[in-house]
Amino acid sequence: MKARVFVSVKPTVLDPQGQTICSALNGLGHNEIAAVRQGKYFDIALTNGVAPERASRLLNEIARDVLSNPVIEDYRVEILD
Amino acid sequence: MKARVFVSVKPTVLDPQGQTICSALNGLGHNEIAAVRQGKYFDIALTNGVAPERASRLLNEIARDVLSNPVIEDYRVEILD
Repeated sequence: MKARVFVSVKPTVLDPQGQTICSALNGLGHNEIAAVRQGKYFDIALTNGVAPERASRLLNEIARDVLSNPVIEDYRVEILD
Repeated sequence: MKARVFVSVKPTVLDPQGQTICSALNGLGHNEIAAVRQGKYFDIALTNGVAPERASRLLNEIARDVLSNPVIEDYRVEILD
């Protein structure tokens, strides 16, 4: 089973990395770019035989406790197959 | 118009960050986790009035030239709306 966990900075939190990329792109002449926000994702492979509900619960727990900082980040778990 | 650019390490390239996360999760008792690969994504907002074909071409160019290192990374552009 494969899953993907997305972690992004909360919409209310500043993302200086994204802002820097946006300024750099504008500076390179790409004036069509209005805003950039950066996030990260984790492609996770689970061992065979894990039930889908168990996988979903486990991945949400891992995303909350290990992969994201819940003070400033949101996460989203997507089961791929 | 909004788009998302995904950048990931090529499958043939080692991802030590992902391996470290995988070991850490196994060490925490999550033995169902077989492998982890980390990637990043960019949520990009374009100014109004950019034609979809132009946006797609522009974003592919930006992804290739600025957001990824084509020697070790793959990218994928997704137009959201």
